[in-house]
Amino acid sequence: MKMTVQELAEIVGGRVVGDSGTRIERIADLINADQNEIAYVESEKVYSAAAESKASCLIVKDGTASRFADRTLIEVSNPKLAFSLIGAALHPPVRREATMHPTAVVAETADIALTAYVGPNVCVGEYARVGVYTRLEAGVVLGANVSVGDDCVLHPNVVLYDGVSIGNRVILHAGVCLGADGFGYVRHDLGYQKFPQIGTVVIEDEVELGAHTCVDRAALGRTRIGRGTKLDNMVHVGHNCDIGERVVIAAQTGISGSVVIEDDAVIGGQVGFGDHTRVQSGAVIGSKAGILPGKIVRPGVWWGIPIQPLEDYKRMNAHMNRLPQMREQIKRLQAEIEELRSRMNAD
Amino acid sequence: MKMTVQELAEIVGGRVVGDSGTRIERIADLINADQNEIAYVESEKVYSAAAESKASCLIVKDGTASRFADRTLIEVSNPKLAFSLIGAALHPPVRREATMHPTAVVAETADIALTAYVGPNVCVGEYARVGVYTRLEAGVVLGANVSVGDDCVLHPNVVLYDGVSIGNRVILHAGVCLGADGFGYVRHDLGYQKFPQIGTVVIEDEVELGAHTCVDRAALGRTRIGRGTKLDNMVHVGHNCDIGERVVIAAQTGISGSVVIEDDAVIGGQVGFGDHTRVQSGAVIGSKAGILPGKIVRPGVWWGIPIQPLEDYKRMNAHMNRLPQMREQIKRLQAEIEELRSRMNAD
Amino acid sequence: MKMTVQELAEIVGGRVVGDSGTRIERIADLINADQNEIAYVESEKVYSAAAESKASCLIVKDGTASRFADRTLIEVSNPKLAFSLIGAALHPPVRREATMHPTAVVAETADIALTAYVGPNVCVGEYARVGVYTRLEAGVVLGANVSVGDDCVLHPNVVLYDGVSIGNRVILHAGVCLGADGFGYVRHDLGYQKFPQIGTVVIEDEVELGAHTCVDRAALGRTRIGRGTKLDNMVHVGHNCDIGERVVIAAQTGISGSVVIEDDAVIGGQVGFGDHTRVQSGAVIGSKAGILPGKIVRPGVWWGIPIQPLEDYKRMNAHMNRLPQMREQIKRLQAEIEELRSRMNAD
Repeated sequence: MKMTVQELAEIVGGRVVGDSGTRIERIADLINADQNEIAYVESEKVYSAAAESKASCLIVKDGTASRFADRTLIEVSNPKLAFSLIGAALHPPVRREATMHPTAVVAETADIALTAYVGPNVCVGEYARVGVYTRLEAGVVLGANVSVGDDCVLHPNVVLYDGVSIGNRVILHAGVCLGADGFGYVRHDLGYQKFPQIGTVVIEDEVELGAHTCVDRAALGRTRIGRGTKLDNMVHVGHNCDIGERVVIAAQTGISGSVVIEDDAVIGGQVGFGDHTRVQSGAVIGSKAGILPGKIVRPGVWWGIPIQPLEDYKRMNAHMNRLPQMREQIKRLQAEIEELRSRMNAD
Repeated sequence: MKMTVQELAEIVGGRVVGDSGTRIERIADLINADQNEIAYVESEKVYSAAAESKASCLIVKDGTASRFADRTLIEVSNPKLAFSLIGAALHPPVRREATMHPTAVVAETADIALTAYVGPNVCVGEYARVGVYTRLEAGVVLGANVSVGDDCVLHPNVVLYDGVSIGNRVILHAGVCLGADGFGYVRHDLGYQKFPQIGTVVIEDEVELGAHTCVDRAALGRTRIGRGTKLDNMVHVGHNCDIGERVVIAAQTGISGSVVIEDDAVIGGQVGFGDHTRVQSGAVIGSKAGILPGKIVRPGVWWGIPIQPLEDYKRMNAHMNRLPQMREQIKRLQAEIEELRSRMNAD
Repeated sequence: MKMTVQELAEIVGGRVVGDSGTRIERIADLINADQNEIAYVESEKVYSAAAESKASCLIVKDGTASRFADRTLIEVSNPKLAFSLIGAALHPPVRREATMHPTAVVAETADIALTAYVGPNVCVGEYARVGVYTRLEAGVVLGANVSVGDDCVLHPNVVLYDGVSIGNRVILHAGVCLGADGFGYVRHDLGYQKFPQIGTVVIEDEVELGAHTCVDRAALGRTRIGRGTKLDNMVHVGHNCDIGERVVIAAQTGISGSVVIEDDAVIGGQVGFGDHTRVQSGAVIGSKAGILPGKIVRPGVWWGIPIQPLEDYKRMNAHMNRLPQMREQIKRLQAEIEELRSRMNAD
């Protein structure tokens, strides 16, 4: 894939400074960039790296072109975003030809788009549906009545249990598991009886789930991941959770049953949610935080176990760091009182 | 599957009030229930939801029928348990016909029950044994000398390394991995020598393991999960652990080597166990807790890192919240002493 | 596999005491060892167990032979290391005959060593390369341009995305996933744009990765795991991390993007690293610790969230435990001041 600076600038609505005919083949970072590569300048901090960069074109912030003498530039309002869009244009995802691999095992009742790619050893269950241009990589298993939309990529060994439904342009990385039974039991005299797990999982458009992330089916009803939400690797989403749109959740976070996370929340890694908590839109939760069951997390930045507003957490930490000093103060007060007392007694 | 209220009541030993011939097709929750569906009433909190529910039958607590006028009811001592049992009757797990899928790769020396289901791309190693009515879903891999009991369900892509043994009525969700090498090395001058990991894993009857849960083989001897124990998704069980019967462990908990968890313990999510700890029967450990190596956890409720009795933890937290106040008090004392001293000096 | 005590002693450079012709078939621990088995004595703590052991040979520390009367012994400087080496000799890993299983799907352009084992349902992409004596177990998926060295073992269902490269004598346990996209997005008005993830993953010689461990590809450049490094189960390594040689990381630890861990660091389980942290050689980080983004972790032992030197952490904990006492002291001081004041007023 080769494009001119002019063509790339058009993709991102940017303004070209310098030679708009320069050919660009690849994206790169400032330091490692070479000829025919394009890099971006995020802030003044990297101006010296930019000056030394061998990139054939730099993406820079509007109004900063004068800082980069004798270079070919694309000026935009958000260089990192423009770089991402240009990266997607220069390095489009692998395209597979429409194929039904001879080793795939596909139920006769399944409805697979003619433009779909069905890789080696893929299994597709009864009445499953796969949309146009969707790629099912090697070893993917779709249960019965599964619905996969258009332009999706299911990486190797993804498993969708019966009845799970995913939208369009969804990316599921290797080993993602959707629709396993939720973790629910009723204790009785002899042990545990499984609580029914007969609901489903619904994944909306443009969701991306990291490798080995698991989303359990609802007990009754559905577990939902909203449009445009991104989950990192090894995230656990329990039964009946409702995760909104454009939510971001970092790796290894665990979400118990019936948790609601509203649109646009941002969640760090290794966070743990008790069941029935609700995270409101505008909340940001730091990594490793722990949220007690039933808690409502309001907008703002939160941290700690159990979580508290980040400012309170910092203040508490500062207090704790003063503990040795406080003990010293108490000792000194004691001595001073002793002294006063002996003076009084001496009087 | 359609059953009458009378038939369902017999399953759970309940008492019918109202029309025992009402036909029930599905379970549902109170709010979403519709005609021919059955729901349950767990406590007084949901009485108003129950009053408005369109369910054709409600499962209610013994002696409460009078609170639900003009409805068909089943009275039982534990409505949630009865609902679970009725759910299992109305929605039995998928039954697969006895099959050996042509794409399965099964060693000639393997012993597979004639009633077993061996799905697409399943691999079964030498001398492995699979019991009656057991289902091996697509992509399951059984190593050599593996033993799988009767009525088990191994969901897609489960991997059992050589020699692992599981009992009857065991459910392993997608991606479960049993018998990988334990994490043990001996440091020497040039790096790490692998400590031998030649033991095995034994899973007893009625165990259910969540998606992607991993149980490592013992170094020497065996790693055991006792009868009726339930593990959620992505739990890590290290080598040589001995987990008792009817233990419950929530998602993403990590258990280091040689940990003993006695019968009926209850463990939250994201808990971490140091090696050689012992959790006694009757212990309940809150989510995200951390247990130091070698610790003995007695009966009671525990929380924190390192864990302490929940009551101590709460008290400590209350003390910490009073830190700002304590600092104020110390300052005030200092001022008062100053005042006393100046008065004395003035005298 | 049967060997004499003499042969085993030669493997580890040890000194035989007693009958050097004794035949040994298996390793075992002191308590369960039986005839024709060899065990090791790590410290004086287990001398009584050693005395009662039925093992046909004990591996003991140099100069301690006199403590074990009438027994066949191998004296070495490090008994546990010797035991590990002898275990590897007596219980060598499964050897597979060179095979290309008929169900394997291998691209014509792939370059597979004639001595390699390619198991059932393995998929190998275009231009992939597999070295001599390497084993690809059932369901392994190698993308295009993947490079796997010599003498590697890839357990079932391992997935290597396009372009990933691993060295020689690497062991990847079941479900390991290398090269999934890193977790990077740029927020814009309508949601998140994926930041390009076009780098790769490089795993050096003698690395072992536990079941379900995931290492993401770099955005640009590469994510690296250095020679001889060992990761436990379900470890998450983010994009662009650089992990040195002989590093040890326990289960469920999560490493954000662009983290550097230098040679010989030791990391516990469930640790969380913020992005761009650097762990220096000689650092030891306790389980469940949390490291803030950008932090430099110097040599020494660290614990806590956020991490601090273990000694400081313990001191802080001790202070916290004295909080109730401090409150009492403050109350008493208050009373004493009151008393002094009233005496002064009375004067």
